[in-house]
Amino acid sequence: MSAPNIETIVSLSKRRGFVFPASDIYGGLGSSWDYGPLGVELANNIKKSWWNWLVYERDDIEGLDSSIIQNRLVWKYSGHEQTFHDPLVDCRTCKGRFRLDKLQDVQCLNHPDVHPGENKECSLTEARDFNLMFRTTMGAVSTEDDPAALAYLRPETAQGIFINFANVLNTSRRKLPFGVAQIGKAFRNEVTPGNFIFRTREFEQMEMEYFCRPEDAGRMHQEWIDGFQEWIQELGISSENLKLYEQTKDELAHYSERTVDVLYRYFPEREDEEKQWDELMGIANRTDYDLRVHSKKPEDAGGKRINPDSTEDLSYFDPQTNERLYPYVIEPAIGVNRTLLAVMMDAYTEKTNDKGETRVILKLKPELAPIKVAVLPLAKNKAEIVDMAKTIKRSLQPSMRAVYDDTGGIGKLYARQDEIGTPFCVTVDHESLVDNAVTVRDRDTWEQERIGIDVLKDYLQKRLA
Amino acid sequence: MSAPNIETIVSLSKRRGFVFPASDIYGGLGSSWDYGPLGVELANNIKKSWWNWLVYERDDIEGLDSSIIQNRLVWKYSGHEQTFHDPLVDCRTCKGRFRLDKLQDVQCLNHPDVHPGENKECSLTEARDFNLMFRTTMGAVSTEDDPAALAYLRPETAQGIFINFANVLNTSRRKLPFGVAQIGKAFRNEVTPGNFIFRTREFEQMEMEYFCRPEDAGRMHQEWIDGFQEWIQELGISSENLKLYEQTKDELAHYSERTVDVLYRYFPEREDEEKQWDELMGIANRTDYDLRVHSKKPEDAGGKRINPDSTEDLSYFDPQTNERLYPYVIEPAIGVNRTLLAVMMDAYTEKTNDKGETRVILKLKPELAPIKVAVLPLAKNKAEIVDMAKTIKRSLQPSMRAVYDDTGGIGKLYARQDEIGTPFCVTVDHESLVDNAVTVRDRDTWEQERIGIDVLKDYLQKRLA
Repeated sequence: MSAPNIETIVSLSKRRGFVFPASDIYGGLGSSWDYGPLGVELANNIKKSWWNWLVYERDDIEGLDSSIIQNRLVWKYSGHEQTFHDPLVDCRTCKGRFRLDKLQDVQCLNHPDVHPGENKECSLTEARDFNLMFRTTMGAVSTEDDPAALAYLRPETAQGIFINFANVLNTSRRKLPFGVAQIGKAFRNEVTPGNFIFRTREFEQMEMEYFCRPEDAGRMHQEWIDGFQEWIQELGISSENLKLYEQTKDELAHYSERTVDVLYRYFPEREDEEKQWDELMGIANRTDYDLRVHSKKPEDAGGKRINPDSTEDLSYFDPQTNERLYPYVIEPAIGVNRTLLAVMMDAYTEKTNDKGETRVILKLKPELAPIKVAVLPLAKNKAEIVDMAKTIKRSLQPSMRAVYDDTGGIGKLYARQDEIGTPFCVTVDHESLVDNAVTVRDRDTWEQERIGIDVLKDYLQKRLA
Repeated sequence: MSAPNIETIVSLSKRRGFVFPASDIYGGLGSSWDYGPLGVELANNIKKSWWNWLVYERDDIEGLDSSIIQNRLVWKYSGHEQTFHDPLVDCRTCKGRFRLDKLQDVQCLNHPDVHPGENKECSLTEARDFNLMFRTTMGAVSTEDDPAALAYLRPETAQGIFINFANVLNTSRRKLPFGVAQIGKAFRNEVTPGNFIFRTREFEQMEMEYFCRPEDAGRMHQEWIDGFQEWIQELGISSENLKLYEQTKDELAHYSERTVDVLYRYFPEREDEEKQWDELMGIANRTDYDLRVHSKKPEDAGGKRINPDSTEDLSYFDPQTNERLYPYVIEPAIGVNRTLLAVMMDAYTEKTNDKGETRVILKLKPELAPIKVAVLPLAKNKAEIVDMAKTIKRSLQPSMRAVYDDTGGIGKLYARQDEIGTPFCVTVDHESLVDNAVTVRDRDTWEQERIGIDVLKDYLQKRLA
């Protein structure tokens, strides 16, 4: 099974310390979220899985970590200053501000039963463009007096890769095809964030730009679409909650020739099956758009310089064909936050115990589980048992994430570990002091097995693999 | 030995892909830097070491990852809106803008031989306070028309921990003393950034807040000072390049009772020994300042509410003493970027080969090295050798970061791996096809050993541990 709706995960997250509302003690801050002790581990494990797969296991991808704040010219030439807009309208009557293209998804502030514009009182302004980039000012100047100090928070990590194309190429001595992978925060001043961590103004991206010869782009695009579907399912997300969506010509970003989205069933409670799905990731063929627009070009056909500010030509010399070209770029882009939400939703399971009580089990893949094993003393007031449990925790820790917990009775402790997805509980009891063995309990089956302490690490490592 | 100066590391970093100037193709952006394929690995390894040590190996520290943009009230009550200032003066003559407290460190723009204010022409304005927090605007409003939308980029990660104190306490069921650790970006609109990645406006912090009973704070402060000195040396930084500095009363931040800085010898080339040192990290006793200022308090002695905006009392109930109190906080705060710079400087070594040529060796601890082993084919035009090398790379990869490289002759490849700190090179040669063995070369001694492929992984793992 999976979670019946996002609210179930919101509640579990807050209760157990995966995700908290940000600035909670000050009434929050419009759909901002902080990641608690378990959420930070789950997110880190997702990032590690992505990085391992792309940068370590393959031989053709380099890592990168570029700045959030770049020179304003990056966003001028990428097209974001000009085109990264949402169309907004204001209602003079209810004073609401709405996205023109999403009027059907929201309500009039005076009449929640109708959409803005549908009531005779409604008086909508003409649409105006609202740029989604966060603005700031850099250096010791006041906001007003120096437009040269204007800077943006990056709305995507991708541009940091394009502007470093020559740096990476020169230091890594790569040949086409090759990719550059980056994980980092990005910021979009969304008009209507919401649905928990699905759409937030501050979010974390995992983006990879795969550079190839133009004639290979179509085929490689398809390979990455296939490859990422496999990777997502390896995170434990079931195929029945995933589907592909081919963007229409109208929906394509200004740089894209073809984009395929991977959708996840984030809203299983919705009656209309079509509305159950939303975007988990996009895989775009960005063509040679970005490398071209950032390239220093002496003159175009009409004798006009296209980018007089760039100091580099970001073309590539192919030693096999003796030819200079602008590589095409395939970009699989996936949000850490949306992945985490999909992983939690898909892992969510309920099970009835023999007393007829409903228990939550988060059936995370062991690779992603925040904690791999919890070591629990059956009697917290017996020093030898406590000492033995702590010693076992420390002996396991270098090989796997282990915790010691004595803050409740054993039944309660088991239930807690089930809810946060810990694959195994190890219980130290009075008998352990005699037989030098412990009870290992399986999260999913609730079956218990007696294992000697001397072989415990090997036993757990095998079952976690 | 260690690097003779920071410039040596700047040059190595750019040449080999550790760190690049950010927005380089657009002329940069005032002391901003991007981390290349090797830099991102080195930084990640430093972060991993910190996190392992604090969150995993100990039993009393939880992790957290809070938002960069928080509610403005966080910075109002933390004191940053009021007090996080630098005093600036302008010179009416040379048009320079300087920090009043750093005039002795900079030059007049017209007369580089004197400090601002020292020439008779100089005409300095009165000092005015310049707040170091980056400002931005959140939501679909214009900058001007809605002061309620003003937000800041966090100047420290610490506040994200304080405002989540109750969330972490409730979900983790901790008792004092315990800590909360966080790694993340922070931003300060420094007037004079510089010295490579030493002082940048965008930077990454590793901060841990250790909550304890007030009477334990002095002792625990000292324990963390000692503990962090050990951890820093375990990163491979030699004790002769480290020293402690006790901040004077005047230097203490508004929240601090005592702060001890750990200094690193970032400027060994300076004649004046005192000027060779600058701050690597600070370890502060922040008292109960932060938890108190963020607490909802009904009334103070004079009947006035102190924080009418907070919805939580961030005090702690001690079940052993049956007493409610505001814990004291010990904060070891260290920058990822400054640590990376110190690690690279300390690892930098030069060695003369038998042809009398000088070679650079980056003697990084294996734990921190971006690449643990490079697998090199002696003849890149012989398919069997190339295949065998690639197969060996893939067989090592799950256990250690391994790369395959064939972009040069063997001498050049060895030299490159020495420069980037790779502990071992594995060379596949014609003989390997016959004896199923490879040559393993040690980075530091340049000694070579013949090792059977079947025992290669175990051999390397032992020597890397």
